[in-house]
Amino acid sequence: MKEAVVLLSGGIDSVTAMAIAMHEGYAVHALTFNYSQRNIIEIEKARRSASAMGVKKHLVLDINLEAIGGSALTDSIPVPKDREMADMASTIPATYVPARNTIFLSCALAWAEVLGAFDIFIGVHAQDYSGYPDCRPEYIKAFEQMANLAIKAAVEGAEQVRIHAPLLYLSKAEIIRRGMALGVDYSLTHSCYDPAPDGKACGRCDSCRFRRKGFADAGFHDPISYQQS
Amino acid sequence: MKEAVVLLSGGIDSVTAMAIAMHEGYAVHALTFNYSQRNIIEIEKARRSASAMGVKKHLVLDINLEAIGGSALTDSIPVPKDREMADMASTIPATYVPARNTIFLSCALAWAEVLGAFDIFIGVHAQDYSGYPDCRPEYIKAFEQMANLAIKAAVEGAEQVRIHAPLLYLSKAEIIRRGMALGVDYSLTHSCYDPAPDGKACGRCDSCRFRRKGFADAGFHDPISYQQS
Repeated sequence: MKEAVVLLSGGIDSVTAMAIAMHEGYAVHALTFNYSQRNIIEIEKARRSASAMGVKKHLVLDINLEAIGGSALTDSIPVPKDREMADMASTIPATYVPARNTIFLSCALAWAEVLGAFDIFIGVHAQDYSGYPDCRPEYIKAFEQMANLAIKAAVEGAEQVRIHAPLLYLSKAEIIRRGMALGVDYSLTHSCYDPAPDGKACGRCDSCRFRRKGFADAGFHDPISYQQS
Repeated sequence: MKEAVVLLSGGIDSVTAMAIAMHEGYAVHALTFNYSQRNIIEIEKARRSASAMGVKKHLVLDINLEAIGGSALTDSIPVPKDREMADMASTIPATYVPARNTIFLSCALAWAEVLGAFDIFIGVHAQDYSGYPDCRPEYIKAFEQMANLAIKAAVEGAEQVRIHAPLLYLSKAEIIRRGMALGVDYSLTHSCYDPAPDGKACGRCDSCRFRRKGFADAGFHDPISYQQS
């Protein structure tokens, strides 16, 4: 059975990307990061999705990105709330974590090399890439090119590293429709950047707003509850 | 004063690359990793060099690469000893850490973005790149291209990320001569992959052998002591 490493945050996108990898026949090694994120509850949610979906292995890797700082997700910078959709889609928000996808993909590459796997899945998509530079197609392609020069297995072997971004051109509603068709249980996912101590989503940060609009547009009920309706 | 992030392991190469960055007029932010490496004493050595050379800031970042494994530097795989120079220069050894430079450069990129810096120094060089894929010029160039698509500052701004590898085409002897000319104190450096509990270098691993040959070829006395002469 072919093997893949899937970056798994525990949100809608990464869980859907993981479902697609499994649907394509990959045995999945899911990789989650404990990077001192504010929404640390997502790690527990990632564990639940990984377990429910039957991954081959789930690794939670510690890396203290708080020491580097520069983001509302790791520092005490406030998380933006109640932003207009147009702003959310066009400006890079304070929740941007510097070089996060590059760090995460690099660790996925290391694990893939150890496993002898050449396929890495990441759930980046169109709605993000208007804002986040490391979600754009040209970035993904450049990472793949670099990866094929970086590791022993690609340099010595006949195999090439492939960075799969199966959601790249989908909207949130399309991602949810795709996941529903594959049987994803979205009640196990977490999206909120700024949850309450009990884990309940705020309903007002960019991530909650994209999620809620995605479910509404897709015509499905969002199975999680919010502090504010 | 222009600012740079320098990857600092505490060995001869990274300390020399740091001296070159300073000589070129950069205020240095030195980045060292605690990645569960066997030769963890190098972190203390890195602290001493950073302090002695007057860096602006020294950050030691924790990332548990032992969880990913696949290397004699993080696992219980034996460190090769007493290898012939020809073998050391032509085969990738068990001390190769999968995608290590990619992970380290990615974290340096994140820190540089937070600092508003665009210059990153890494001490890779010719003697390594016959063995390690992530020390070759084409790899460094591909990483730089990817970096310029990855971060907000490069995408939005007029600046471009530059990955400096000032030792790339130098032999170990040439690196040592360059460092001596810049006043580097090599008594503070550590090279051994498999030191004794008291930190004393083994004298027999690839890294010790390259170091000892480098000092001999350069015509300088190696100021550290070895378990085996």
